[in-house]
Amino acid sequence: MHSFEELLKLYTSKFDVPHFPDQPENLYEPAEYFLSLGGKRIRPVFCLMGNELFGEIEADTWKLADAIELFHNFTLMHDDIMDDASLRRGKQTVYARNGANTAILSGDVMLICAYECLNGINPELLQPVLGLFNKTAREVCEGQQLDMDFENAKYVSLEEYIKMIKLKTSVLLAASLELGALVGGATKNNCNHVYGFGRNLGIAFQIQDDYLDCFGDPEKFGKIVGGDIRRNKKTFLLIKALETAKGAQKAELERLLGNNEEDKVEKILSLYKELNVDKWAKELEQQYADRAFKHLDDIVVVSARKKYLKEFAEYLLQRES
Amino acid sequence: MHSFEELLKLYTSKFDVPHFPDQPENLYEPAEYFLSLGGKRIRPVFCLMGNELFGEIEADTWKLADAIELFHNFTLMHDDIMDDASLRRGKQTVYARNGANTAILSGDVMLICAYECLNGINPELLQPVLGLFNKTAREVCEGQQLDMDFENAKYVSLEEYIKMIKLKTSVLLAASLELGALVGGATKNNCNHVYGFGRNLGIAFQIQDDYLDCFGDPEKFGKIVGGDIRRNKKTFLLIKALETAKGAQKAELERLLGNNEEDKVEKILSLYKELNVDKWAKELEQQYADRAFKHLDDIVVVSARKKYLKEFAEYLLQRES
Repeated sequence: MHSFEELLKLYTSKFDVPHFPDQPENLYEPAEYFLSLGGKRIRPVFCLMGNELFGEIEADTWKLADAIELFHNFTLMHDDIMDDASLRRGKQTVYARNGANTAILSGDVMLICAYECLNGINPELLQPVLGLFNKTAREVCEGQQLDMDFENAKYVSLEEYIKMIKLKTSVLLAASLELGALVGGATKNNCNHVYGFGRNLGIAFQIQDDYLDCFGDPEKFGKIVGGDIRRNKKTFLLIKALETAKGAQKAELERLLGNNEEDKVEKILSLYKELNVDKWAKELEQQYADRAFKHLDDIVVVSARKKYLKEFAEYLLQRES
Repeated sequence: MHSFEELLKLYTSKFDVPHFPDQPENLYEPAEYFLSLGGKRIRPVFCLMGNELFGEIEADTWKLADAIELFHNFTLMHDDIMDDASLRRGKQTVYARNGANTAILSGDVMLICAYECLNGINPELLQPVLGLFNKTAREVCEGQQLDMDFENAKYVSLEEYIKMIKLKTSVLLAASLELGALVGGATKNNCNHVYGFGRNLGIAFQIQDDYLDCFGDPEKFGKIVGGDIRRNKKTFLLIKALETAKGAQKAELERLLGNNEEDKVEKILSLYKELNVDKWAKELEQQYADRAFKHLDDIVVVSARKKYLKEFAEYLLQRES
């Protein structure tokens, strides 16, 4: 068995090779460039960890991990167009570097290559694997659509926001783990718990991300605090604040959202504290984390096999183990 | 067994139903709208005809036909963005109606739905079916890339142009037939001939299309003659003319390509005739048609089973049977 770090190293060394033919160059070179930008590779490593919960890593799992990472990069390449984003990981997006048309078509072919990876596995597993992969891919598109819809929406409920986060990010983490578990020979019941672990972990992680953007230590967090606030981004905290605030607080919050005054971030952060939105967010994160760990506990396999996944989840959520 | 017309009627009545859920509306409504624009549905009907070459139409073949038609519409929806096209079949494209972002994401989800259709078939056939589908999908992307590359290229050889046409249009016609044949229980050898028939037929049809745009009867052809010439579109005829013309003819051709004078079409058509490009195109079409019909002949099945496919191919190529 391997820790996340060990699997990440193994996976990266396997994945950092050319994935596409040379020609047509204008189709494949941008796809290759995009993959070379790197990334956290959490999803493919989750796939490997899902397998290792139940046994030695199978050759098929490496193929699924590639399919997942290619799919994820396909979504990012198209998201960059939709978000009009020129930078990703400090480098030019394909959209900015080669134009929208290239980003569309290179993204398309990357998705097709993901399906080619899937088709390399043991045919007996193909139908359930393809079923989960397709369902997840569709949900990720739905999540991206909701995210775009919410940008233009005046009011988004907490329930709607959680649904969007589930679709846009959690289901792919969950499916990555479950696909590995499937190949590792997990029972249906264990697969469900693996998926539940991933889905709840993903939501907890997003709540934490929204929280840290407001209250994180910039040194540790690696980002400037308040970025979401400056962009009026709908987050767990803003949505809860809008639901909670009444009277003068509500008026002040709405006034601030309509402005870009210099101390907007400080003023909104104070409001969040007055409204106890910071505490609420930590509690909500805790609830989802608890559900995630409960699912991990309920997987029927010796605890030793759960060690590294538990360790990594605790690290992700910055919990003491 | 059924004629093309009969199968088209059957297929259309089955296909003209909602294909997507209601929500998120901004994702699925544009996809539904795009399918409602109709189309010739040649590819899914070819899939049914590929099956009927070898036996009764299987339930799986209907699913493959849907997968093929969804895939084709996905490519059209994305092509409309790349071509900056506002109209398709006389109606607004999704790109013009809902914007590029919607056309990207609704197209993406349509491709994923195509894979969902594939996954509904008998698992035993899934691997070969997915293999051919993936290979074809990748080739169609490559063809679209070459087509875009050629628009900006000063010189395109006949060989390169044929390669582009093969990838962009022929392989999908060929694969549609072969996927149906696969489900119909065709041997590997028969599958190869089915594919060869479709691939050569597709090229012959494109040569004819390029020819008719220059020399067709506007009444029968349904388009204004010379559209390709006005847009300086690289076609079989222009490419051959550029390869063949020398001296004064060459100079005149290049001068005309650099202008948009009123009698450009007439002058280029005269040049084509002087250079015998019209006869050459008919001969080339004939060569590909002959190859197609040779493949049809070589399929090991009673001739009666080939009747409707032969009839339809002759109709497509406007040949007397």
